[in-house]
Amino acid sequence: MTPTLAYAARSATSPLSPFSFERRTPGERDVSIDILHCGVCHSDLHTARGEWGGTLFPCVPGHEIVGRVSAVGRLVSRFKMGDLVGVGCMVDSCQHCQPCTDGLEQYCDNGFTGTYNGPEQGTGANTYGGYSNHIVVRESFVLRIAHTEDRLAEVAPLLCAGITTYSPLRQWNVGPGHKVGIVGLGGLGHMGVKIAAAMGAHVVLFTTSPGKREDGLRLGAREVVVSKNADEMAAHAGSFDFILNTVAAPHDLDAFLVLLKLDGTMTLVGAPASPHPSPGVFNLIMKRRRLAGSLIGGIRETQEMLDFCAHHGIVSDIETLRMDQIETAYERMLKSDVRYRFVIDMATLTA
Amino acid sequence: MTPTLAYAARSATSPLSPFSFERRTPGERDVSIDILHCGVCHSDLHTARGEWGGTLFPCVPGHEIVGRVSAVGRLVSRFKMGDLVGVGCMVDSCQHCQPCTDGLEQYCDNGFTGTYNGPEQGTGANTYGGYSNHIVVRESFVLRIAHTEDRLAEVAPLLCAGITTYSPLRQWNVGPGHKVGIVGLGGLGHMGVKIAAAMGAHVVLFTTSPGKREDGLRLGAREVVVSKNADEMAAHAGSFDFILNTVAAPHDLDAFLVLLKLDGTMTLVGAPASPHPSPGVFNLIMKRRRLAGSLIGGIRETQEMLDFCAHHGIVSDIETLRMDQIETAYERMLKSDVRYRFVIDMATLTA
Repeated sequence: MTPTLAYAARSATSPLSPFSFERRTPGERDVSIDILHCGVCHSDLHTARGEWGGTLFPCVPGHEIVGRVSAVGRLVSRFKMGDLVGVGCMVDSCQHCQPCTDGLEQYCDNGFTGTYNGPEQGTGANTYGGYSNHIVVRESFVLRIAHTEDRLAEVAPLLCAGITTYSPLRQWNVGPGHKVGIVGLGGLGHMGVKIAAAMGAHVVLFTTSPGKREDGLRLGAREVVVSKNADEMAAHAGSFDFILNTVAAPHDLDAFLVLLKLDGTMTLVGAPASPHPSPGVFNLIMKRRRLAGSLIGGIRETQEMLDFCAHHGIVSDIETLRMDQIETAYERMLKSDVRYRFVIDMATLTA
Repeated sequence: MTPTLAYAARSATSPLSPFSFERRTPGERDVSIDILHCGVCHSDLHTARGEWGGTLFPCVPGHEIVGRVSAVGRLVSRFKMGDLVGVGCMVDSCQHCQPCTDGLEQYCDNGFTGTYNGPEQGTGANTYGGYSNHIVVRESFVLRIAHTEDRLAEVAPLLCAGITTYSPLRQWNVGPGHKVGIVGLGGLGHMGVKIAAAMGAHVVLFTTSPGKREDGLRLGAREVVVSKNADEMAAHAGSFDFILNTVAAPHDLDAFLVLLKLDGTMTLVGAPASPHPSPGVFNLIMKRRRLAGSLIGGIRETQEMLDFCAHHGIVSDIETLRMDQIETAYERMLKSDVRYRFVIDMATLTA
């Protein structure tokens, strides 16, 4: 057992505070990782505050983890001590259902094991995430990081925000010659813009904030459309091959569906707490459009994404935090006051 | 000009009644057709009664037309006098946009010409449909009928109900080894069951009417699920490759979305007058499901569907009508009191 320092929520209403626990004794297929940085995802906040129901307390959030291998089990072949590695939203799955066999562990028929708020395979124990200084993860859920060490903090958000946007862009074959919309410029959206642009698409960013126009262009969008402006929107009617919608707040999906061309798809990666207004069936029928969903990505695809981002020099735009600033970060996230992801420097986590 | 007898609505509130007009003088690429039978589609009723807005009066509905060629223009090469032919929902389109070039005239960028309620290409004149004894149609929108003449009345509904269900089943590659749901057993649904079964799929019919169970099995379904029965529904969770939803009345789409497996698609072919309850985004995200729409089918695909149905001995289950019974038929359609399509015997249309 490895004594581990963390920050945990003791209840839905208590702020996160220091917490000590023991990680499991590493098995022969496990990788032990000293955590260097951990990104802060909206899911962390929702789970810590019990907003989705089902939170197990104490809750140690964090699933955008980067760190250095401190030890490996006897049967671990792909990692060695000192390697830079990442851990995303999953630390395990059943490994035998069809989705797992196909490398789609996020759709495991038996439910994957979340990096936090478990349950652990076999024991059913709660899992504790990346707001901690150490983690033990089975080799097959550990990712290799090819970026240089000085970018490591900026790599952390790729483990959730990066793969969540990369996976649908890949699934729908985004590439050169495609006109691709990204709805929303937050943690996910800013990764979507960078990745879609690197894939060669003509990227159009949709934002409600005129003040984000320059940022959108800097991040790789060829055009920025203020989605509240009906004239700007109308100019793009029926012209998009694909739209990635990263906005979790309820909003009018039709405003974007009508921008798709024949056989175009809009994929949603955010689930609103209350429903979107019902999308118009007519808009789906008249141009054979599709409305789809997508959940993070599989481990194989996450590695592909990390390698793609390293190759294209893509990282996240971040603001670093001390661990004891987490509650302030949550409050700022709720106001969308972050460009574009908070990352905790785990060296600031002390007992 | 060809004097033509028809039944028309003079206004949204007047019952259909006899109407005389002249069809255009056939051009060198036109086919003149004596109409033998015409199916009765819900769209006929909605348009005649002005329920969708935009109805041009007088309105002669009817877009499930079968008949015999009475004359052909000088440049017509594929048809000759005496041939059995069909005309569906479209009689023209721009013929030069990308969808038209791709054989997807139903998605014509410039708007196809409906068989009724036009506007005619070039002139902008209103078009009059199949509740008439004669029609003139450009060759490229005329379909060849390979069924035997004695089945002709039963073929008529293939021109709309048949292609509207065939097209999405083909688009989503339904075939042997697939589990396919058909929601609703009406004019469209009963064709969907027959066609999907002939494509080799394991077909499950969803109906709200326990009384339709035997019919569903007779038509080709391997299982019939009464969709109001939560236990029956739950037994099929996450198991469908594809669901074709033919129900136009607002209903809970989530009840069917959760029955799709990973990467499964539900295609809607009915547009409700008021919105469906908003589908849950979570159901789309958790198994990367898709909600799609589809509109009739292109001319090339309609010919393929007719040939497929002739090859497999598929026709519609119909009840024949005299032309002067049309208002009674509409009233019965509104009560879903038809198994499963009304077809007008055009020999009963007299001045």
